[in-house]
Amino acid sequence: MRIGFIGLGQMGRGMALRLIERGHSLSVWNRSREATALLAAQGARIASEPAGTLDADIVISMLADDAAVHSVWLASGLAPSAPATSLHVNMASIGLGLAAQLSESHRRGGSAYVSAPVFGRPEAAAKGELDIVAAGPQAALARCTSVFEALGRRWFDLGPDPRHANIVKIARNFVLATIIESLGEAFALVQKSGVAPKDFLDIITATAMSAPAYRNYGRMMLEKPAQPTFSLRLGLKDVELALAAAAESAVPLPSASLLREQHIAAIAHGYGDKDWAELGNWIAERAGCPR
Amino acid sequence: MRIGFIGLGQMGRGMALRLIERGHSLSVWNRSREATALLAAQGARIASEPAGTLDADIVISMLADDAAVHSVWLASGLAPSAPATSLHVNMASIGLGLAAQLSESHRRGGSAYVSAPVFGRPEAAAKGELDIVAAGPQAALARCTSVFEALGRRWFDLGPDPRHANIVKIARNFVLATIIESLGEAFALVQKSGVAPKDFLDIITATAMSAPAYRNYGRMMLEKPAQPTFSLRLGLKDVELALAAAAESAVPLPSASLLREQHIAAIAHGYGDKDWAELGNWIAERAGCPR
Amino acid sequence: MRIGFIGLGQMGRGMALRLIERGHSLSVWNRSREATALLAAQGARIASEPAGTLDADIVISMLADDAAVHSVWLASGLAPSAPATSLHVNMASIGLGLAAQLSESHRRGGSAYVSAPVFGRPEAAAKGELDIVAAGPQAALARCTSVFEALGRRWFDLGPDPRHANIVKIARNFVLATIIESLGEAFALVQKSGVAPKDFLDIITATAMSAPAYRNYGRMMLEKPAQPTFSLRLGLKDVELALAAAAESAVPLPSASLLREQHIAAIAHGYGDKDWAELGNWIAERAGCPR
Amino acid sequence: MRIGFIGLGQMGRGMALRLIERGHSLSVWNRSREATALLAAQGARIASEPAGTLDADIVISMLADDAAVHSVWLASGLAPSAPATSLHVNMASIGLGLAAQLSESHRRGGSAYVSAPVFGRPEAAAKGELDIVAAGPQAALARCTSVFEALGRRWFDLGPDPRHANIVKIARNFVLATIIESLGEAFALVQKSGVAPKDFLDIITATAMSAPAYRNYGRMMLEKPAQPTFSLRLGLKDVELALAAAAESAVPLPSASLLREQHIAAIAHGYGDKDWAELGNWIAERAGCPR
Repeated sequence: MRIGFIGLGQMGRGMALRLIERGHSLSVWNRSREATALLAAQGARIASEPAGTLDADIVISMLADDAAVHSVWLASGLAPSAPATSLHVNMASIGLGLAAQLSESHRRGGSAYVSAPVFGRPEAAAKGELDIVAAGPQAALARCTSVFEALGRRWFDLGPDPRHANIVKIARNFVLATIIESLGEAFALVQKSGVAPKDFLDIITATAMSAPAYRNYGRMMLEKPAQPTFSLRLGLKDVELALAAAAESAVPLPSASLLREQHIAAIAHGYGDKDWAELGNWIAERAGCPR
Repeated sequence: MRIGFIGLGQMGRGMALRLIERGHSLSVWNRSREATALLAAQGARIASEPAGTLDADIVISMLADDAAVHSVWLASGLAPSAPATSLHVNMASIGLGLAAQLSESHRRGGSAYVSAPVFGRPEAAAKGELDIVAAGPQAALARCTSVFEALGRRWFDLGPDPRHANIVKIARNFVLATIIESLGEAFALVQKSGVAPKDFLDIITATAMSAPAYRNYGRMMLEKPAQPTFSLRLGLKDVELALAAAAESAVPLPSASLLREQHIAAIAHGYGDKDWAELGNWIAERAGCPR
Repeated sequence: MRIGFIGLGQMGRGMALRLIERGHSLSVWNRSREATALLAAQGARIASEPAGTLDADIVISMLADDAAVHSVWLASGLAPSAPATSLHVNMASIGLGLAAQLSESHRRGGSAYVSAPVFGRPEAAAKGELDIVAAGPQAALARCTSVFEALGRRWFDLGPDPRHANIVKIARNFVLATIIESLGEAFALVQKSGVAPKDFLDIITATAMSAPAYRNYGRMMLEKPAQPTFSLRLGLKDVELALAAAAESAVPLPSASLLREQHIAAIAHGYGDKDWAELGNWIAERAGCPR
Repeated sequence: MRIGFIGLGQMGRGMALRLIERGHSLSVWNRSREATALLAAQGARIASEPAGTLDADIVISMLADDAAVHSVWLASGLAPSAPATSLHVNMASIGLGLAAQLSESHRRGGSAYVSAPVFGRPEAAAKGELDIVAAGPQAALARCTSVFEALGRRWFDLGPDPRHANIVKIARNFVLATIIESLGEAFALVQKSGVAPKDFLDIITATAMSAPAYRNYGRMMLEKPAQPTFSLRLGLKDVELALAAAAESAVPLPSASLLREQHIAAIAHGYGDKDWAELGNWIAERAGCPR
């Protein structure tokens, strides 16, 4: 399949390489050129502008945040001018308002749009082990199957409205953030009461909380990854997407507000570029039991 | 084994019956007499006072709250007067201060004390499928093995200090409460954005949050149990044990404070006797999307 | 003095009329034409576009929110194209980022910019009883004196950086929001314990909390203004300005996050267009003691 | 008047001396003897037990906390055994449950009970400048007039139910705590945005927040009292009285929960014995702008 790929950050790079491995033909674009060398070495064509990727069966974009998506696809006029045959599959986590705008822009220009955000870190992206939640016109989704199979362990069809995939991703990452926060608080509590957080983690992940999220984030909290693959600052971005979506439909989200405050306080103490899991270590520090 | 059993509430009743089934010989006491008939029918001896259960290899207690434990074991002088051969295994969830007092009282009188709180609801108790966290003098723990095997799926040894078992139970139930709260908030968020909470739940429990706690509480939240086996009011009691333990060692626990407020607000709106899971339905009501 | 005036909402209208009363000559612009009739009747010249107000000694703007300010002054190119002799005095409450952009835009075009947000409601605006916090180049501030005297009871000079006036307004309205919230909570607490909120209010405003903010908001909370002059929804806007400013400089502002949640919950229950003071009545309703 | 006085802490000492100055005849009791020397030097009779103060027209008690009040008046049997002619005026801040117990105990023994908690610090106590909120049987209140006039600037009659005076004191101190917290947050916000907290304080206390509470706590926050007369730890006690009273009548009090967390976090960082006002300095420290 001929695939355009826009955005070669930590996630996008792994995904693009994976698609090449699986035999797809890629033309890629990235704001900075360095990131493209690796892809060129694997046979990808390097486009000099985003529009250079549109001549493809599917164009995947994996940009950093709402501002980047807005600038590349909307402010530039790329979305409405995409050929009627093209299909934009946006796999980044974006806000609901922007998803609606993108969908509408493509629709007006005659092209198709699918929101397909993913669960998983760069390690999973590189191995094709993401979980994908996708929504958009059913014909468009059907065209994505081989891409989703290359990139994901599993994918979920959320129906025709692209925003529905985004809200599931946003709500899921909000739940993930509550896991990090609650583990951080619980670890501080048991530690100051004389129990090793590791023992506590082993017990709860052997019983009712036996889920990867608890195991992985608990472990990272205690091991402090030397190379963060998802920073606390990015975690805050996700919490803010949840707060924005909630405000839009007047849903109180008190846990998200608390999370936002905790992230900001952690950033004020130098944790912004540490791994998201280390929010728990800031909590420990604040409780007077630094690790 | 000859087992004394004090406290025949929803949990205690199932546990006591299970022990009889497994061939143990029980003498039981309960504040109100009705609850004892069921046990007598299965061959248990009914004691007219708590002290009447002490002539046994092990005395298990499963009382409702700290006040009941204090009244039966401390105010009455039962703990310090227990025979030196006796072993008190307290399987209720109690606060750290009370655990320390009990431990000390038994030690002074020459008897042994083990804290062995459990994870699980009455259904699990009746089937011997509890998870047990136990701590106390190692010789005493060794004497509990057959009891733990009868009642639990699994048990964890937290070492010689009884308080350590209690803090693990307290911190774990605090984490459980954050699961209920965050699911409730996430459900309201996706629902008001057009996605069925059930679909959201299926997705997260198929991926990173694939743990019994999410599955069970998510399901109960949506199905609203007709017969609550653990009320929201009892959930608040657990949150308050966490706050008390945290205050004792100066650990901020902002999520627990938020949980406390949410529970109180739900109680003010008539949710006190509903199942703990229905906290999520109060959250939905407050968000303007009642179920 | 020849004064341009942009923005004739509830606040702007009263301020413009007050300036005419005090003998100033006004040319006014407003997005919708209806609002201008009243001013025309008092002798104001009606401009057909914002630029039509620039031929003046001072141009005051009092627009509804950051989006309106951005659209009228920046997106349109009005600020950078203003004549070098002109002075823009922005008396609306805006965010710090926008204040910086406005200041820079005017500077580049050669004109001057002053931030001069006000404390007070439409009633005070109409009577010239506002409190004004102003900041900007000292020569520019000096030119504002007669305007500030016409509109305000008092004005404060915050120095040359316009953002400093905005942050004072933002932080002050945040404090005001905490007053409304805490009065609402305290009223519910005393009411459910048997004491009339009015009696409580009389006592605290006769002693350590004897300030207009407590007296006025307490009274409005109990009397429920038939004609809200500042809606709860606008209150939320102010809380969000505080959160945005705080995030910008990594200041945790947990009370503001709590306030935001309370406002959103109140809006979900139909309080958005009620007076800001009625946040307290939503709190009472939530506590199960509706007024 | 013959006055018994129980409890010579920082507050009680000043109040007792003030009463002597105003010509009353005192017999005093205090748990530790040192505190009594000062009073003896001014002519007070020193009782060797609490009961030694009961032979008086009025017995005032000013004990440290609920536990001390319970131990001196209830556990000991003092309240029910007080002579029918005696009147106990409890001027300490206590919880609602304890106030009800005291009232009932005195009633059963035939003596009278008045709750009369005060607003003000030791400095105000020593000068007779307290504000007093009193409630109890009207005949009993009438007997207190000269005492209230000696100790207070003003007193408020809350009617026959003693609990009503206590809830007013509790709710008022909760509001005071929100003032400290919000000032702390606002100071951090303006400071990190370039405005001196002192300038911000001058502006708000010249306008809508022109109340002693803002002026005094704002000033103390910036000046850091060398000799705290009311510690942060005591502030937490008051916040907890509010939370307990709120839980009793199912009133959510989210601001109080937030305050509790902030106090505990501050205590974890060594602020427990600093002045209550310094909560604001912990907030500044946490925001990364220590003073």
